[in-house]
Amino acid sequence: MQASVDLNADMGESFGPWRMGDDAALLGIVTSANIACGFHAGDPDVMAGAMAEAVAKGVGIGAHPGFADLQGFGRRRIDMDRRSLGHAVAYQLGAARGMAQAAGGQVRHLKLHGALANMASEDEGLARACYEAALAVDPEIIVMVLAGTAQEVAARDLGARIACEIFADRAYEDDGRLVDRRKPGAVIHDGALAANRILKMLEDGAIIVESGKRLPTRIDTICLHGDGAEAVKLARDLRAALEGAGVRLEVFAGDR
Amino acid sequence: MQASVDLNADMGESFGPWRMGDDAALLGIVTSANIACGFHAGDPDVMAGAMAEAVAKGVGIGAHPGFADLQGFGRRRIDMDRRSLGHAVAYQLGAARGMAQAAGGQVRHLKLHGALANMASEDEGLARACYEAALAVDPEIIVMVLAGTAQEVAARDLGARIACEIFADRAYEDDGRLVDRRKPGAVIHDGALAANRILKMLEDGAIIVESGKRLPTRIDTICLHGDGAEAVKLARDLRAALEGAGVRLEVFAGDR
Amino acid sequence: MQASVDLNADMGESFGPWRMGDDAALLGIVTSANIACGFHAGDPDVMAGAMAEAVAKGVGIGAHPGFADLQGFGRRRIDMDRRSLGHAVAYQLGAARGMAQAAGGQVRHLKLHGALANMASEDEGLARACYEAALAVDPEIIVMVLAGTAQEVAARDLGARIACEIFADRAYEDDGRLVDRRKPGAVIHDGALAANRILKMLEDGAIIVESGKRLPTRIDTICLHGDGAEAVKLARDLRAALEGAGVRLEVFAGDR
Amino acid sequence: MQASVDLNADMGESFGPWRMGDDAALLGIVTSANIACGFHAGDPDVMAGAMAEAVAKGVGIGAHPGFADLQGFGRRRIDMDRRSLGHAVAYQLGAARGMAQAAGGQVRHLKLHGALANMASEDEGLARACYEAALAVDPEIIVMVLAGTAQEVAARDLGARIACEIFADRAYEDDGRLVDRRKPGAVIHDGALAANRILKMLEDGAIIVESGKRLPTRIDTICLHGDGAEAVKLARDLRAALEGAGVRLEVFAGDR
Repeated sequence: MQASVDLNADMGESFGPWRMGDDAALLGIVTSANIACGFHAGDPDVMAGAMAEAVAKGVGIGAHPGFADLQGFGRRRIDMDRRSLGHAVAYQLGAARGMAQAAGGQVRHLKLHGALANMASEDEGLARACYEAALAVDPEIIVMVLAGTAQEVAARDLGARIACEIFADRAYEDDGRLVDRRKPGAVIHDGALAANRILKMLEDGAIIVESGKRLPTRIDTICLHGDGAEAVKLARDLRAALEGAGVRLEVFAGDR
Repeated sequence: MQASVDLNADMGESFGPWRMGDDAALLGIVTSANIACGFHAGDPDVMAGAMAEAVAKGVGIGAHPGFADLQGFGRRRIDMDRRSLGHAVAYQLGAARGMAQAAGGQVRHLKLHGALANMASEDEGLARACYEAALAVDPEIIVMVLAGTAQEVAARDLGARIACEIFADRAYEDDGRLVDRRKPGAVIHDGALAANRILKMLEDGAIIVESGKRLPTRIDTICLHGDGAEAVKLARDLRAALEGAGVRLEVFAGDR
Repeated sequence: MQASVDLNADMGESFGPWRMGDDAALLGIVTSANIACGFHAGDPDVMAGAMAEAVAKGVGIGAHPGFADLQGFGRRRIDMDRRSLGHAVAYQLGAARGMAQAAGGQVRHLKLHGALANMASEDEGLARACYEAALAVDPEIIVMVLAGTAQEVAARDLGARIACEIFADRAYEDDGRLVDRRKPGAVIHDGALAANRILKMLEDGAIIVESGKRLPTRIDTICLHGDGAEAVKLARDLRAALEGAGVRLEVFAGDR
Repeated sequence: MQASVDLNADMGESFGPWRMGDDAALLGIVTSANIACGFHAGDPDVMAGAMAEAVAKGVGIGAHPGFADLQGFGRRRIDMDRRSLGHAVAYQLGAARGMAQAAGGQVRHLKLHGALANMASEDEGLARACYEAALAVDPEIIVMVLAGTAQEVAARDLGARIACEIFADRAYEDDGRLVDRRKPGAVIHDGALAANRILKMLEDGAIIVESGKRLPTRIDTICLHGDGAEAVKLARDLRAALEGAGVRLEVFAGDR
C-alpha cells in the first residue's frame, strides 16, 4: 500500500449571482482544489473567494481551465484549432496565477475541465497543445492527468511534472476509459464501496476495471465530486476510510 | 529639457475576426505597448500575437485592463463595487502576465483603459482599489498614471513604481483634465503642432494647458493613438521631432 | 376595495448549469411572470422552459429585459446611450416574443429589470427610450411600471397600455421611492403584515408610505419575490389573504 | 433560362467598435440580406442599423443565426444537443423579428450561418431541429437552404417555404458539396468567370460541378460574399452579367 495520496475536487464553479457546489465543506476534505478560471465557470470575485479559502485551509491550488462556454459549463465540445486552445489555456492559467498571488498563494497544478479534458484524454496532440502552453507560462506547473489516457502520454512526453488521477466514484472500462454515465453502475454512490475500491487500487498500484482486470498505474490523486450533499458525504467517508487504513492524505509531490 | 521619454500606445485591440489598429506600424514607433486583456478587447489569440510582436521589437509590455464590455469597448461606465473592480484588474493582469511569459517576455506596467481609466482619474478610492489589486499580483509592476489626476495620487500613496503620462494629441483644461473630445481643438491632428507642444512640455516639465498656464509634472511617457493612418503618421512625426530635438526615446524606469 | 388585482414575479433567472428561484412554485401563485431575456439571466433553454410552464399554467407572460451583464445580474448601472438602450430592449423583447410564440404563447407585457428599472424610475427620458423601442416592436405591449415613478410618466406620455405596480414586501419613502434595502424595516418578511399593508393600499387606491402618508395611485399588479422558501411562503400567504378578502386574482387588462 | 433570381449576402457582421464588410455597397447589389443576430456577430445597434438600411433599400430581410461564439465568428463547430440548438435558433429569429419590426420591416427568410450551416448541410436531424424551431416562431418563414444538401431535405420534409441557394464564387464537388477552401480553384475570384458559371447553371437548372457533371436543382438565390473590395466588385459584375443576360433580379417567392 502506498503511504500517501492526494484528494482533489473542482471548486469555484459559482458565477455571478449563481451558486454551485459546497466549496467550504470540500476544502475540509480535499488536499488539492481545481479552481475554475472564468471561461466555463467562476468569475474574478468567485476566484478570489475560492483562492482565499484554499490558502486559508492550506489546500493545494490548481487552475482548472475549460472552454469559453458558460451556458454549456464547458461540457460541450468546441472544434478549436490547437494554437487557439493553447492560448486559451495560457490565458486562464495566467489569470489563476494572478488571483492566487493576490490571495497570498500560488498555483501548483493544472487540470483540464469538462469537454476539453475529455478531448485531451483521447487526442494526444490536443493534450500536448494545452500542456505545452501551460508549461510556457510555468515550467514547474504540475499537470494533473487522467491516469492511462492520452493526457498522461502527452504530459510525460513533454517532461512535465505530473499527478496521475483516478476516480473515486466512477467505474472503468477494460481499456481504462470511464464507463458512460448513462450505463448502470457507472457512478458509485456508496462511500464504503468507493473506499474499498480505492484501497484495493492503492494496494495494487492499478486501476481495477469492472471485469476485475488490473491496469497498473501510478496513483497520485483521487478525484472527488462536490455537487450535492451525497457527494460531500461520499468524499468524507472516503477520506475517513483512507485514514483508517493508514493512508496519509497529502498534496502530491508532482514527480516527473 | 529632459534627456529621454517613453512613447506608449494601446494595442491588441482586435477581437476574434475583427481587426483594429495597426499594431505592426505602432510597434516600430513606440517604446511601450498597452495590451488589451480580453475584457473590453483582445482575446487569447490576439494577446498572444501582440505579446510576441512586442517581445520581438523590444517594446515594453503593459497590461491594459478595462471593463468587461466588448460591445461598449470598455468605454461605458459600469457601477461596480471596488472589491470587484480589484478582482477584475488582478484577473486581467494575471492573464496578461501569463501570455507575456508564454511569449518570452514580461509585463512591466499596467494602464487602465477607457471608462475605468476615466473613473480612476476622478476617484482616488477607485484608483486605489485597482492599483492595490495589481500590486498584490506584482509589487514591482509600474503603474502608468494620467499625470496630475487621482490616478497619480493613488499610485503614489500606495508607494508604487509609476510612469506619469501626458497626451500628445489632446488639449488640456486649466485643472489638468483633458478638453472634452466634442469641443473644437480638443484633439490635435497636426504632427508638427503636437511635437511643438510636447517639446515645450518636456522643456518646462509641465503640462501646458489651453490658456497657456503651466501645471508642473513629471513626464515619463507620452500617449499616442493608433487608429487610422493619420494617427500613425502623427505618431511617426512626433517621434522624429523628439529625436531631432535630441530627446532619447526609451522605456521609462518606473521610479517611485 | 378594487375587485381584482394581478400578482407578478420574476422568473426564468437560471442560466446554463446554474439554478435560481423556484419557478414551479411561483407559477402556482402569480398571474403574471416576468421572464428574463438572456442579457442579465436566462438563456434560450431556460427561456423555453419558463415560457412552456407559464403557458401550461395560464400565467401572463412578460419580457423582463436588463443590462447585458450576467456576472452582475443586471444590477450594476451601465452608462449606455439611449439609442443603444432602446435597441437592447427591442432585441430582448423580440427574443422573448419568439420564444413565447414557439411555446404556444405570447408576450403580453414588458417590465424592466434591476439597475435598468431603477434608472428608468428616476429618468423619464431613459424610460421613454426603452418603452418607445418596445412599442416599436409591439404597439399593444403592456408596459408594467413602478407606480408613481418616471416609468409611469414616460409610459403614459407615450400612450402605452400600462400596468401599475406596487411592492408587497418593501417599505416606501414619502416620495414614493422604495426604502433602501440596507435600512431596517425596508424589507417585509412577514406574510400577514405584508397582506395587511397591501389590502389597505388596495382599499385606499394609494401607496401607504412609512410615515402613514397616502400617495394615490392606480394599482394593477403586486410584485412578489421568489428567491428562497421564505419568499414563496410570503407570496402564498399574500395570495390567500387577498382571496380571503374577496379580491379576485387575475391578469391585468392593460388599460391606457 | 429562368426569368428571375435573387442575390443574397451576409450583413450586419460588425460588432461593437469593430467593423466588418461593406453593407452599404452590398445593399445596392443584392435583393436579400442575411443579418447576423448577435450570437456570432452583430449586436442590437448593428442589427438596428442593418435592418434600417435594408428596409430603406427594399432588400428582403433574413435572420442569420449562428453559434454563440463571437471570438470564433460562429465558424467553430460546437457539440450542442438538438433541443438547445432549436432554442438558440428560435431566440435569434425572435430577436431579428423584433429588430426588423422596430425598423418598419419584417424578417422574410432564415439562413443558418457558418459551422451551424455546415453541420446542418450534413446532418438532416440537426437541420430539422433548427428549422422546426424557426417554423414554430413563424410558420411562414422562408428557409434558405444550400441546394442539394441535408438542409434542403429537412426543410422540404417539414413542408416549409424554401429558397434554394447556390454559390457564385465557389467550386462544387461531384456530390454537391463545396470544394474545400484550401484546394486550388475552390474560390472563384474572377467576376466574368463566376457570371458564366452562374448563367450556365441557371440555363440548365443545375449545379455544374468541377468535373462538368450536372446536379439538377431549383435555383432561387445566389450567394455572394461581401468581405473586401474584390468581393464587392465580383458581386457587382455578376449582377451586371445577369441583367445583361435578361435575368430579372428580385427577391425569391419562397414556394414550398
